[in-house]
Amino acid sequence: MTWFYAFDLFGVAVFAISGALVAGRKSMDLFGVLVIAIITSLGGGTLRDAILDNHPVSWIRNDVYILVAVLAAIGTILWVRFTRPIHETGLLIADAFGLAVFTVIGTQVALQHDVPVSAAVIMGVMTGVAGGVMRDVICNEIPLIFHKEIYATACIAGSVVYIALHQLNTTPNLDVTISVLTVLVIRLAAIRWHLGLPRFHLLDRDPPDRDQ
Amino acid sequence: MTWFYAFDLFGVAVFAISGALVAGRKSMDLFGVLVIAIITSLGGGTLRDAILDNHPVSWIRNDVYILVAVLAAIGTILWVRFTRPIHETGLLIADAFGLAVFTVIGTQVALQHDVPVSAAVIMGVMTGVAGGVMRDVICNEIPLIFHKEIYATACIAGSVVYIALHQLNTTPNLDVTISVLTVLVIRLAAIRWHLGLPRFHLLDRDPPDRDQ
Amino acid sequence: MTWFYAFDLFGVAVFAISGALVAGRKSMDLFGVLVIAIITSLGGGTLRDAILDNHPVSWIRNDVYILVAVLAAIGTILWVRFTRPIHETGLLIADAFGLAVFTVIGTQVALQHDVPVSAAVIMGVMTGVAGGVMRDVICNEIPLIFHKEIYATACIAGSVVYIALHQLNTTPNLDVTISVLTVLVIRLAAIRWHLGLPRFHLLDRDPPDRDQ
Repeated sequence: MTWFYAFDLFGVAVFAISGALVAGRKSMDLFGVLVIAIITSLGGGTLRDAILDNHPVSWIRNDVYILVAVLAAIGTILWVRFTRPIHETGLLIADAFGLAVFTVIGTQVALQHDVPVSAAVIMGVMTGVAGGVMRDVICNEIPLIFHKEIYATACIAGSVVYIALHQLNTTPNLDVTISVLTVLVIRLAAIRWHLGLPRFHLLDRDPPDRDQ
Repeated sequence: MTWFYAFDLFGVAVFAISGALVAGRKSMDLFGVLVIAIITSLGGGTLRDAILDNHPVSWIRNDVYILVAVLAAIGTILWVRFTRPIHETGLLIADAFGLAVFTVIGTQVALQHDVPVSAAVIMGVMTGVAGGVMRDVICNEIPLIFHKEIYATACIAGSVVYIALHQLNTTPNLDVTISVLTVLVIRLAAIRWHLGLPRFHLLDRDPPDRDQ
Repeated sequence: MTWFYAFDLFGVAVFAISGALVAGRKSMDLFGVLVIAIITSLGGGTLRDAILDNHPVSWIRNDVYILVAVLAAIGTILWVRFTRPIHETGLLIADAFGLAVFTVIGTQVALQHDVPVSAAVIMGVMTGVAGGVMRDVICNEIPLIFHKEIYATACIAGSVVYIALHQLNTTPNLDVTISVLTVLVIRLAAIRWHLGLPRFHLLDRDPPDRDQ
């Protein structure tokens, strides 16, 4: 379990870095960078806990989460300013790892509240992706996850695998390991070969409705 | 009550369709279409329940809601791809019906929590319109409801009518029926004759404040 | 305590005015103006209470809050239409005062829930600024607070001062007064001399990632 806690903190750090980078692209000030980093890394879990009525939320129960997010954001700023640019591929791989851990944690927490399978999958996906959606919405962009290579689909697969193994009563470490690997492998394959879901293109047939 | 449950599910389906259509206009992928459909149809009620501390929220208590939203979104994609385009007027009428049912449900739930009248009206309106606002914010548009014909005003009227009839202790079916009809009639009249509220135009007098 | 309640209502009114003005710049209709005013003035506290599980939230417990927000929004529309334009400096000073009061209230509420110091500071800042962030996100702008003069930093300072004085067990009025003044002085100084935090400029080095 301590291994898993370390992975969780690693996921927080990675998501905080991605938040700080998007904030930097928008030329936000230092406070803005910290806020976006915190929201990106802890927003998904907070939303899940508020909907599940699972209180206190993680970063209120344990202030290490905030500390890790803040340090990761400050470290990102210093790194970009004083050294070479961010290694994009390294960040993508780290992000895939954080995504996998967050998804499995979210599914676990939901199952502990005896929710239906559909809600558990949604909670897993929400924990993995909602922080990034909040980051993009606040930064005034259409969330990246709805456009680029397979991302949330990997979360759905990992969440379903976890639920199946959990109901089969495998050893606790086995279900976690296999489901984390499921997300990771799908996501890394999508990055490597630019796999994407088909898009739904709908021409705007009713201009009078869009009067703005 | 079973009639009302059927109406509720019909509202979920209609709002999911409208979410899928907006996502399609933004060329989202299949996952994005599903997420926007779910958020549009269930986001308003979820926000209401989180603020009211009314747990578990509807789609966690009963997984039929998610199922209906997902099927409606997938059906929309197939319909647009393989048949003729969406019948806009039919959709607007169905949307008005969903709006009416959601508003009355939201007001009912709030009254069961013994909130003041002002909060009950806000909860009714929130249940009716917040899902659509979330859809537009995530899709990076200024929410339609703040610009176009009377929409939320119909919800306010229906919510107030419901509260009044409820306090007069009319028969349960009567208060629901009349308040649903109130929303429906106002909304359909607004669509038919393009009725809108006056707008508040404020020129941007302080450009230095908008330094972005 | 009654003084503080009056200050709280004053903060609600000031934030509602700022919400109504931003809505007016977007030419929203009357309903949109009311909604943005309510969200700006009560959104931060509502988010804090949902995350802290502090129910019922303020405006459900006491309907004076909604009344003040609605009256302030309507008053703003009438004022702009029938008299001279808004006195921007006066509004900024009033806004600084509301910010100070909201921050201290948010920190107080968090401490009553026995949260760690980091979470109490976040709750204080959130109560002060989240309503404005919601206003800007819904109005499709990058939140002002991440770009302009020191704003949230003043909240952080005031929240930390309040926590320190509270743990030193000073008289209740003294800790509130000093921490409100801390926010107020920093914010007014930032307005007067255009003080800002350094920004984090990051060039967009990975165009293929932004494929939209």
